[in-house]
Amino acid sequence: MHRHRPSLGTLLHHVHVSGPLSRAVLAERMGVNRSTILALTAELVAAGLVGEEHPAGTTGAGRPSLVVRPAPGIHVLAFDVAVDRLTAARVGLGGAVLDRRSAARARSGADLDSVVGTLAALGRELVDAAPPGAVCVGIGASYCGMIRPGDGMVRYGPEIGWVDQAFGAELAKALDIGHPVAVGNEAHLGALAEFERGAGRGVPDLVYLHGDVGVGGGILVGGKLLGGDGGYGCEVGHMLVNPVDGRPCLCGSRGCLEAETGEYALLAAAGRTPGPTGAAAVRAVVRDARAGDPIAAAAVAEVGDWLGIGVANLINLFNPGAVIFGGMLRDLFPAAAPHVAARIDRHAMPVSRERARLRVSALAGDATLLGAADLGFAALLADPLAFGLPVV
Amino acid sequence: MHRHRPSLGTLLHHVHVSGPLSRAVLAERMGVNRSTILALTAELVAAGLVGEEHPAGTTGAGRPSLVVRPAPGIHVLAFDVAVDRLTAARVGLGGAVLDRRSAARARSGADLDSVVGTLAALGRELVDAAPPGAVCVGIGASYCGMIRPGDGMVRYGPEIGWVDQAFGAELAKALDIGHPVAVGNEAHLGALAEFERGAGRGVPDLVYLHGDVGVGGGILVGGKLLGGDGGYGCEVGHMLVNPVDGRPCLCGSRGCLEAETGEYALLAAAGRTPGPTGAAAVRAVVRDARAGDPIAAAAVAEVGDWLGIGVANLINLFNPGAVIFGGMLRDLFPAAAPHVAARIDRHAMPVSRERARLRVSALAGDATLLGAADLGFAALLADPLAFGLPVV
Repeated sequence: MHRHRPSLGTLLHHVHVSGPLSRAVLAERMGVNRSTILALTAELVAAGLVGEEHPAGTTGAGRPSLVVRPAPGIHVLAFDVAVDRLTAARVGLGGAVLDRRSAARARSGADLDSVVGTLAALGRELVDAAPPGAVCVGIGASYCGMIRPGDGMVRYGPEIGWVDQAFGAELAKALDIGHPVAVGNEAHLGALAEFERGAGRGVPDLVYLHGDVGVGGGILVGGKLLGGDGGYGCEVGHMLVNPVDGRPCLCGSRGCLEAETGEYALLAAAGRTPGPTGAAAVRAVVRDARAGDPIAAAAVAEVGDWLGIGVANLINLFNPGAVIFGGMLRDLFPAAAPHVAARIDRHAMPVSRERARLRVSALAGDATLLGAADLGFAALLADPLAFGLPVV
Repeated sequence: MHRHRPSLGTLLHHVHVSGPLSRAVLAERMGVNRSTILALTAELVAAGLVGEEHPAGTTGAGRPSLVVRPAPGIHVLAFDVAVDRLTAARVGLGGAVLDRRSAARARSGADLDSVVGTLAALGRELVDAAPPGAVCVGIGASYCGMIRPGDGMVRYGPEIGWVDQAFGAELAKALDIGHPVAVGNEAHLGALAEFERGAGRGVPDLVYLHGDVGVGGGILVGGKLLGGDGGYGCEVGHMLVNPVDGRPCLCGSRGCLEAETGEYALLAAAGRTPGPTGAAAVRAVVRDARAGDPIAAAAVAEVGDWLGIGVANLINLFNPGAVIFGGMLRDLFPAAAPHVAARIDRHAMPVSRERARLRVSALAGDATLLGAADLGFAALLADPLAFGLPVV
C-alpha cells in the first residue's frame, strides 16, 4: 500500500483543487489507466477522504464514468491576519469556505497575546459550530509580514510592529486541537492560491501583488514560490521606486513601492488625510475618480503611475506570464490600468512584456485565506493515509 | 547499460566541475558505494571520457583511492560576444581554457554576418591548432542580449542594435563542424558559472551582476536560472531606479540601472566624455578615485549610490545568499562598496539582507566564457555514452 501514497496524494490534490472529477478525467490528468484510478479511489474512499457518485444530470441510462468528490467532512482551520481584520475560517477539502468568523483589529499596538487570543476564540467558535463527524486535518495561517519557514515565527511585521514573535507556536498552543499551525506570508500564499485555483491557473511564472495597507508580493518561478536563501523573498513593497522625494514608509525608509502606492499614499494624494482609512475609504476614492472628481482622479493617476513603475520593473526581472492584482489592488487596478500600462510601455523591455497579461484576482478577496487553508492541507495531501481518519 | 546513464552523467559532472576526484570522494558526493563508482568509472574510461591515476604525492606505499580525472582531449568550443570584443576558446572537460583567440569589435553597426564571420574564423583557428586526437563535443556561446532558449535567436541586443537575428543557427552553419550552437545571455551564463565553480559555489540563491557597457543580471533561485515565462528573466539592467532625472538608456528609456551605473555613466560623471571608452577607461577612473582625484572619487560615489539602490532592491526581491559582481563591476565594486553598503542599509529589509554576502567574481573575467562552455558540455553530461567517442 505504501507505494501508492504519492499517487494517492496526487489524486486527492486534483480533487481538492478542481472539485468533483470523473475517473476518466483523473486518469487522463494523472497519465495512468482507469484501473489504477479505481484502486486509488477505493483506498481514498476507505480512508474517508473522497466519495463517488453518479455525475449530476445523468439518469441511469448508459454507464457514465463515476465522479470522485472530496468527502464533505474533511476540513482545515485557516486564519488570516490582515492589517485591519482578523479572520478565521473552516475550509473544506475542495476549497470551499464552509464557515467564517472575523473581528476588527486596531491598526497598531496589538500584541501577540491579543491577536492570538482573538484568533483562538474565533477558531473555537468554528470548531464548536462544525457538524458532527467533521474532521479537522490541519491548520494554516496567513500573516501580513515576513515569516520564518518551518516554525511560523514572525520575523518582521511593519504595520503591526512585531519583530521575532512566535506567532505560529503560540496560536497552536492556544488552539490546542492537536495540530501545529503552518504560517506563511499573505502575498506568498495569495500567489499560490491564484496559481492553484484562481487567475494564475496554468501560469507557472507569475507575480501576485497584494494590496493591504502596504503592498506585498508573491512570485512564482516555474510553479514554485520564490523563497530565496531564507524564505524571505518577494518583498516587492520595499523596492525603492522614488529615490528623490519619496513618501515615508512604515519600514523606516522612503520612496518604497508601498509608500507610493499603498492606502496612505492614495488617501493623501486625494486630500483625504486625516480621515477614514481602510478598504471602504480606498473604494470611495476609486469610485469618485470614475465619477469625474478631478482630485480623486489625479490621486488614482499618481498612484497608478508609481504602481506602473513597480510592475514594469517586475516584468523586466521576472518575465512573468501574468501579473495578478489582489487585495485592495483589485479595486484600484482597474481604475489605474491606463497609467500602469503607460509605464510598462515606457520601461519594460518589449521582449519581456510580450506575453505578460495583467489580471485581477479571481478569488474574491479570499486568495490569502485559501492559501492559508492549503498550508493546512499540505500534510494530508503529502501522505493521505497517514491520518487514520474515521470514515465519514 | 542504459540505466547507468544518469549516474554516468552525474559522475562526469562532478569531475568536470571539481577536477580530479578520488573514487572515495565521488562515492561520498553521489551517495553510492565504491563498487558502483568502480563500474561507472570503467564505462567512462572505455568511452574515452575520463582516466584514472594515482593521486599526486603518493609513492605506492599503501593503496590510496585512485583519482578520476577528465580525459585531456575532450573539449568544447566556447564563444563570447561582448560589446567591445569577440572571443573564442577551446575549453576542456574540467573547465580549463586550453586555447583562446579574440578580436576587437566595433561598438555599433556590426551586422550578423560580420560577427558570425569573425567568430567562425576564430573557431576554425582553434580547431586547426587543436592537438591530434582532441575531440570537440559541443559548442556554446554567450551573447550580450536577450536570447530565445532553444534556437539561439537574439531577440534584442541593445548595444549592437540587433532584433530577432538567428545568431545561433548562423554561427553553427558557418562553423560547420557537426554541432549546433547553444546560446545564452552573458549574465545568465555568468551566474551559472559562478555557481558551478566560482564565487557562488554552495549558494543556490544568488544574484550575479555583469558589467559590460551596460549591466546584465543572472539570478539563480534554488540553484536554477530564473528564466521566466519565455526565458527572458533577469533584465536587471533595465530596472528603473531614477524616474526623476535619469540618464538616457540605450533601450530608449531613461533612468535604468545600467544607464546610471554603466560605463558611460561613470565616464560622464568623471568628466571624461568624449574620450576613450572601454574597460581600460573604467579602470583608470577607479584607480584615480583611489589615488585621491576628487572628481573621479565623486563619480565612483555617484555610480556606487545608484548601484546600491539596485542591489538593495534585488536583495528585497530575491533574499539572495550572495550578490556577485562580475565583468566591469569586478573593478568598480571594491571602490564603490561603501556607497553600495550604505544604500543596502537604508533600503534593504534587515531580515532580507541578514545573510546576503557581497562578493566579486572568482573567475577572473571568464565567467561568461565558462558559462558558454558549459552550454556546450550539456549534451555530453546529460548522456555521456551517446557520443560514441573514439578512445583518446
